[in-house]
Amino acid sequence: MWMKDIADYLWVVISAMIVFLMQPGFMALETGLTRAKNSINVAIKNMSDFILSVAAFWFVGFGLMFGESFHGIVGSSDYFVNFEQDDWKAAFFLFQVVFAGTAATIDSGAVAERAKFSTYLLMSFITSAFIYPIFGHWAWGGYFYADNAGWLQQLGFLDFAGSTVVHSIGAWVGLSGVIIIGPRLGRFGKDGKANKIRGHNLVFAYFGVFILFFAWFGFNAGSTLAATTKIADIIANTLISASFGGLTGLFVSWKFSKNQLPEPESIINGILGGLVGITAGCYYVSEVGALVIGIVSGLVVYFGTLLLEKLKLDDVVGAIPVHGFAGVWGTIATGIFIQESYLLEFGMTRSNQIMIQILGVTAAFVWSFGVSFILMTIINKFFPMRVSSSYEEIGLNIAEHGASTSIFELSNSVRNIIEHKNFKNAEKIEVEFGTEIGELTDYFNSMVNDLKEKEEMAEEALQSLHHMAVTDGLTQILNRKNVTDALEKEINIAINYEKKLSILLFDIDFFKKVNDQFGHLAGDQVLVDIVKNVSNTIRKTDYFGRYGGEEFLVIMPKTDLETAYIFANMIREKIEKMIWDFSKGYTITVSGGVVENAGEDLNKMISRADSLLYCAKEKGRNKIVK
Amino acid sequence: MWMKDIADYLWVVISAMIVFLMQPGFMALETGLTRAKNSINVAIKNMSDFILSVAAFWFVGFGLMFGESFHGIVGSSDYFVNFEQDDWKAAFFLFQVVFAGTAATIDSGAVAERAKFSTYLLMSFITSAFIYPIFGHWAWGGYFYADNAGWLQQLGFLDFAGSTVVHSIGAWVGLSGVIIIGPRLGRFGKDGKANKIRGHNLVFAYFGVFILFFAWFGFNAGSTLAATTKIADIIANTLISASFGGLTGLFVSWKFSKNQLPEPESIINGILGGLVGITAGCYYVSEVGALVIGIVSGLVVYFGTLLLEKLKLDDVVGAIPVHGFAGVWGTIATGIFIQESYLLEFGMTRSNQIMIQILGVTAAFVWSFGVSFILMTIINKFFPMRVSSSYEEIGLNIAEHGASTSIFELSNSVRNIIEHKNFKNAEKIEVEFGTEIGELTDYFNSMVNDLKEKEEMAEEALQSLHHMAVTDGLTQILNRKNVTDALEKEINIAINYEKKLSILLFDIDFFKKVNDQFGHLAGDQVLVDIVKNVSNTIRKTDYFGRYGGEEFLVIMPKTDLETAYIFANMIREKIEKMIWDFSKGYTITVSGGVVENAGEDLNKMISRADSLLYCAKEKGRNKIVK
Amino acid sequence: MWMKDIADYLWVVISAMIVFLMQPGFMALETGLTRAKNSINVAIKNMSDFILSVAAFWFVGFGLMFGESFHGIVGSSDYFVNFEQDDWKAAFFLFQVVFAGTAATIDSGAVAERAKFSTYLLMSFITSAFIYPIFGHWAWGGYFYADNAGWLQQLGFLDFAGSTVVHSIGAWVGLSGVIIIGPRLGRFGKDGKANKIRGHNLVFAYFGVFILFFAWFGFNAGSTLAATTKIADIIANTLISASFGGLTGLFVSWKFSKNQLPEPESIINGILGGLVGITAGCYYVSEVGALVIGIVSGLVVYFGTLLLEKLKLDDVVGAIPVHGFAGVWGTIATGIFIQESYLLEFGMTRSNQIMIQILGVTAAFVWSFGVSFILMTIINKFFPMRVSSSYEEIGLNIAEHGASTSIFELSNSVRNIIEHKNFKNAEKIEVEFGTEIGELTDYFNSMVNDLKEKEEMAEEALQSLHHMAVTDGLTQILNRKNVTDALEKEINIAINYEKKLSILLFDIDFFKKVNDQFGHLAGDQVLVDIVKNVSNTIRKTDYFGRYGGEEFLVIMPKTDLETAYIFANMIREKIEKMIWDFSKGYTITVSGGVVENAGEDLNKMISRADSLLYCAKEKGRNKIVK
Repeated sequence: MWMKDIADYLWVVISAMIVFLMQPGFMALETGLTRAKNSINVAIKNMSDFILSVAAFWFVGFGLMFGESFHGIVGSSDYFVNFEQDDWKAAFFLFQVVFAGTAATIDSGAVAERAKFSTYLLMSFITSAFIYPIFGHWAWGGYFYADNAGWLQQLGFLDFAGSTVVHSIGAWVGLSGVIIIGPRLGRFGKDGKANKIRGHNLVFAYFGVFILFFAWFGFNAGSTLAATTKIADIIANTLISASFGGLTGLFVSWKFSKNQLPEPESIINGILGGLVGITAGCYYVSEVGALVIGIVSGLVVYFGTLLLEKLKLDDVVGAIPVHGFAGVWGTIATGIFIQESYLLEFGMTRSNQIMIQILGVTAAFVWSFGVSFILMTIINKFFPMRVSSSYEEIGLNIAEHGASTSIFELSNSVRNIIEHKNFKNAEKIEVEFGTEIGELTDYFNSMVNDLKEKEEMAEEALQSLHHMAVTDGLTQILNRKNVTDALEKEINIAINYEKKLSILLFDIDFFKKVNDQFGHLAGDQVLVDIVKNVSNTIRKTDYFGRYGGEEFLVIMPKTDLETAYIFANMIREKIEKMIWDFSKGYTITVSGGVVENAGEDLNKMISRADSLLYCAKEKGRNKIVK
Repeated sequence: MWMKDIADYLWVVISAMIVFLMQPGFMALETGLTRAKNSINVAIKNMSDFILSVAAFWFVGFGLMFGESFHGIVGSSDYFVNFEQDDWKAAFFLFQVVFAGTAATIDSGAVAERAKFSTYLLMSFITSAFIYPIFGHWAWGGYFYADNAGWLQQLGFLDFAGSTVVHSIGAWVGLSGVIIIGPRLGRFGKDGKANKIRGHNLVFAYFGVFILFFAWFGFNAGSTLAATTKIADIIANTLISASFGGLTGLFVSWKFSKNQLPEPESIINGILGGLVGITAGCYYVSEVGALVIGIVSGLVVYFGTLLLEKLKLDDVVGAIPVHGFAGVWGTIATGIFIQESYLLEFGMTRSNQIMIQILGVTAAFVWSFGVSFILMTIINKFFPMRVSSSYEEIGLNIAEHGASTSIFELSNSVRNIIEHKNFKNAEKIEVEFGTEIGELTDYFNSMVNDLKEKEEMAEEALQSLHHMAVTDGLTQILNRKNVTDALEKEINIAINYEKKLSILLFDIDFFKKVNDQFGHLAGDQVLVDIVKNVSNTIRKTDYFGRYGGEEFLVIMPKTDLETAYIFANMIREKIEKMIWDFSKGYTITVSGGVVENAGEDLNKMISRADSLLYCAKEKGRNKIVK
Repeated sequence: MWMKDIADYLWVVISAMIVFLMQPGFMALETGLTRAKNSINVAIKNMSDFILSVAAFWFVGFGLMFGESFHGIVGSSDYFVNFEQDDWKAAFFLFQVVFAGTAATIDSGAVAERAKFSTYLLMSFITSAFIYPIFGHWAWGGYFYADNAGWLQQLGFLDFAGSTVVHSIGAWVGLSGVIIIGPRLGRFGKDGKANKIRGHNLVFAYFGVFILFFAWFGFNAGSTLAATTKIADIIANTLISASFGGLTGLFVSWKFSKNQLPEPESIINGILGGLVGITAGCYYVSEVGALVIGIVSGLVVYFGTLLLEKLKLDDVVGAIPVHGFAGVWGTIATGIFIQESYLLEFGMTRSNQIMIQILGVTAAFVWSFGVSFILMTIINKFFPMRVSSSYEEIGLNIAEHGASTSIFELSNSVRNIIEHKNFKNAEKIEVEFGTEIGELTDYFNSMVNDLKEKEEMAEEALQSLHHMAVTDGLTQILNRKNVTDALEKEINIAINYEKKLSILLFDIDFFKKVNDQFGHLAGDQVLVDIVKNVSNTIRKTDYFGRYGGEEFLVIMPKTDLETAYIFANMIREKIEKMIWDFSKGYTITVSGGVVENAGEDLNKMISRADSLLYCAKEKGRNKIVK
């Protein structure tokens, strides 16, 4: 335990506070780069994994990382760490717990938009309680208690503020997740082509990067764990590497991207790459070293992103290239660019240092990827780590938290309409009271309703038209055109399928007399009433049409002559027996001809029936002739 | 006046700056949890109450709070406080003014979405100028001048950073507001059921909570008012309480909420509850105390929120449970969990301490709720503190600031359409130049226009259909079917209401001769011209239809036989006098029968008219027979 | 080189970090005050100009500003400044580089929404590499090396934290830009009236102002470049000036704005004006001075904004009034309100000081506006600094970065529909996979499709109606009404344009016999077949209609009597030769009359034809008479 000046307290506490801002920084970045339907879920994950990692690191992690070392492998004291009697331990804990929170939150961006909330929390807990602290012990175990260094630290591994310890560890856990839960629906087409899935709020993502940029100053310079004059140099290196990482992303995407435009994501990932890259060496390298580290980090992130896409690994925010690949580069680069004076101080050759750096990043990968991959495979077996595809489609805001954003709710409502394909059958969308979306939904309901009405109106109009076209205005049965059309079809059927087909052509005897004697209205009434009577007599499969003034045609499919004749007589008799309002004693009769189709065409068949009808008239009327 | 080390200056000034960030924190939280239509108003209130409270606290508040004590009740010097000759006073003022600003802004969330801007500002001024500083004097009056303690402070009341002094005071003022101005429209249904009104940007609310979380570190640790090693411990306690408050909110809502989902609002209010809860005791309690305070704070906030809902108190962001209830709990918990060493130092027993804590929170409630309730009741009488319901409906962005968000403007425009119920009469929406909404509005105008046209087209089609169905093709007057339908209706009316009803049935004499002699065209012309002539002769209430080839029916409702006969002869005479193009000397006459309904039905009435028409023909034509 | 205490390091480094937050502050402010379609471009510019200015200031700017002075005009050492051996230089560089970044970013808001990205970056580079540092040398050149003061500093020019050095310089570069690239499309109407173009996210703009407010504390108090007790006083002055600037904006807009409402933009620009105004004098003036400076700054910004509008200068975020006008005021006000003790210390009279202050702001304007105006004029000649108007219309997010926001993409899609004017021809909108907008677009596609179908349905219905209205049901040629309408039109044409016009009126001889002998069907068939035959005979320009039962009319425009007679006989002969199904040997003939129009009207012409037809019948039928 060191005696610390009050300036050290101030610096470490203020730095810890600033590092805490990495949380809102990551939250803004990740919510901005994901779709609105998952944005709240991302925010909740970022918040929850942090407060959970506070518990995890306090209960377990701190002890594993900084407790008394068991052979350089793991800390073995200070679980449920108590610091109320030791203010410096409190300050140290503060600074370390926000680091653990950072490590725990990195993978959230990689597996966003499909990782299940419950199992995600579990992995966060495991990361901040075990995976991060154990590797942390290897590299940084001696930072609290003296003579307590982990094995990597003993070998001389340098990672000043955690390019590997924090960032790569987080990234490799994310890589396990990305492999195990697979890419988002639709991220890679059936043809294997990657589809870009745009974030919904790039402005907020940019804001988040500014916050991260700021927090990183505390992250790197606070890692001095003391108020030293070196802090300014560390921050200057951080600023330079980040700036040149960003400029590299800017110009590389301007030159090499598909659209040859300075891409928004490339610039911010370049900056973040530059920040991760300089994190290991910010204390040891010169400004020129920082410049080179930044530029190469920008390249590593840009091309690393393309590589992941090629491997069909779906890392939503680019966490793996930024925190993993640039972390590896930055850690090795520390060996490459470390200033001579430090090598002398550590008694190292540059090549030895580089070897140890490579050993360190390898150990980090094997440990964190290995353990997380195994654990997740097991967890995934019992508690699937991915939400169902229907959950993924409706979005995790709704599915996991019952929460929603306006724009999502609108599009979701609309989806319901679309799935019903037409507006007529669309159900009214449920309106949630008092939100703007309520009003928009109202609007769509109204719109849909209007379209429904229009559709009904139009259909009604078309039906009227159709009805007018095919029916006789007075009697509302088929008109001449349509009854002959029907006969033509039935003749075809009869001939082609060798079916029977008969028709009855009948007209009203002495109809003119009715008109003259009782007036037109009576005449019309006779027509209408006879039609009604006949309609009730014929079978459902028969056709009945007005062929001319007082002439009617009955088509009887699948009916032979004899049967037709019987029906025809039934019709005739019924009409004969009708009682008429305009003159109770009056009798109206009909005469008709029945023919069965003999392979002849429409005209011939009707002509035959017409002739028979003529015969019936000649034979004294009120007769059916066959 | 103390001599202060430069480290104290740095710490207090930096803490003050960090506490200032509570303002954007609250702004983000509150705008996120309110509807878009009020979001700008909320932002403006958060900004304006702060700058106003700077003035209020500078002019009045600081003196009342920290000026020379008048019997422990109120400060009596240092109004319009001058600190240019006293740098420490400046630092102390800075730290205190951001506290006053925090107290003043807390109620803005509670009364959001319906509190009027002007009276809200007035209450903010009163809170930061009087309500907060006077209670502040009681608890903290001795913090600047020595031997200047307020009465609560003298009793030993402990509220390290203001669970009660700042947060509860703000919450109780908010409670007065909530009671006096009432719930938002639609918050509680007529059946008494609470309707959830969703915030429009939960992601931004989460961001705000992160900022508040950060600012709270400065709030609590800065309250040391000196650079001490204790600051790390204070922040660690703050972090632990907040984290466990949040975890409690998370798991409680997961278990107990209606949807059994981890609710977004429960998590952040749990965190804020944990922060408020630990504020009083952050200096005095152990980490385990912090853990318990955090968990209980989470429960207090969760169930306090349900309680408020049950009481039909509409606290938009949960300010009362978070700052009020958790503030009470945290202040009392300070007595419960204070470490022995401090009790010894203060010469207190634990139960005494608890009693004094209870006295303090009670005094805070009585003072701040009492005064604010009385003041607001008076203000509300003269200057209503709530906006009109139409303002509330269109939203305070527009109503109070002429400002708007895109999504609101869209839904507002749409509301206008909906209120017109149909698109045909919808006015074109006004387009504000150059905004996105302008383009969307254009779209809706276009959509509406299209629907209008379709509606007109469809109506035109239906009218054509109707016209075709009811009119005679040649003469464009009612056809047989429709004129008899009309007669049937009029007969019903005549019989049921004992009205007179007469008809004229007439036909053109020797019409066939016209056709034969002058051709069909002349014949048609005769029909058309006679119809035109007759149409001009009959009254608006009469019906006129073509009953057959050259036969016409005039229905004369409410007309007795004699009058009808006069009209009929008028018609006959006019026709007789017509001059015909096809043969200037030619005369065309009509014969007709007039009957008055005698309770008979349609058929009988027309039959009678027909008979009389027949008589007229027999009598030599160009006659009307009645 | 000074020996510095660790507290100085802490303060300067922490201040520099805080000043860095001006970048996200400006970003949030500017993105919020611009339209969604340009918001990402604004964010990218804010990020890119900062990382670029780090490079520019490191490579060139620092040396020009703080290098060894060449006659007080320009620094001449420390290019590519190396500070790894000099920790204080690193701290000093850090603080200065964030100032340079601030100066470089100010103009981005003024020229937003139409400045091209590439040339904007170029100007940013020039500003932070040359324009800002050279003026900076004049005023602050002696701040790093002793005895190195620039000429203004030597004269006693006071600008503590840069009202002029940073803010006005940035604003005047912005002014050049505004003049050279001109106002945004539609900002000023043809009538010269200014159109308000609303920002898309005022809440985020407010958030940005809070961040700027915070960062300004570091900006002003960090300018001590040492941990002194004075920092609290500086921040208090800053707080007071900003608050009263904001209150002034609030109340002035409430009183004087068009709507008499407290305008959102007026409040935040008042605050920013107060911040800029106090920046020069924050060290030297009393709190009362700060109060007056704040109030006047609020007025200067409010009326300065109106002035710019009057001059038709389009400054999107009000950068020129805020940073330029309030900067001038604040710098001069430093001379007015500087406390006596400082005047004594500097050996100055107040009036001298004021003169030097005026000289300083004038020099700043001449230098920065002059140089930037000349440079931009040249650049603009070779590389237009403004995007094309089509780019400006679709927005710089898409045009310059291929990026988009949901709301913009929606409105853009909609524009395509509107441009097609009707939905029938609207192309399906391209759907970008996986974004919310994809679903909304789906919806619009579906909507459009539905409208298309409805339109087609309605058109079909109308066409059916039309067909029914103008054609004869049996023969499908023109009916009586329409063929006479056509004749009427042709007569008009014939008379007005002195064209020939003939008609043939013909009817079928002994048609009744066909019906009686072979039945109605045969009769109909005769009509239909004759019509078909005649239709094939007549010319495309002729009309053919059914005039009555078996009577037909052929209209032959531009045809004299003889030709018509020939055609008529052709028709007659063809009919005579027709072979009839119902009786192979049967012959049907027609009789007709042909007349040429002799200036007579419809009725007379048809009457003549009718008479000739009658003649033909009399002459034994199967004849055409002319």
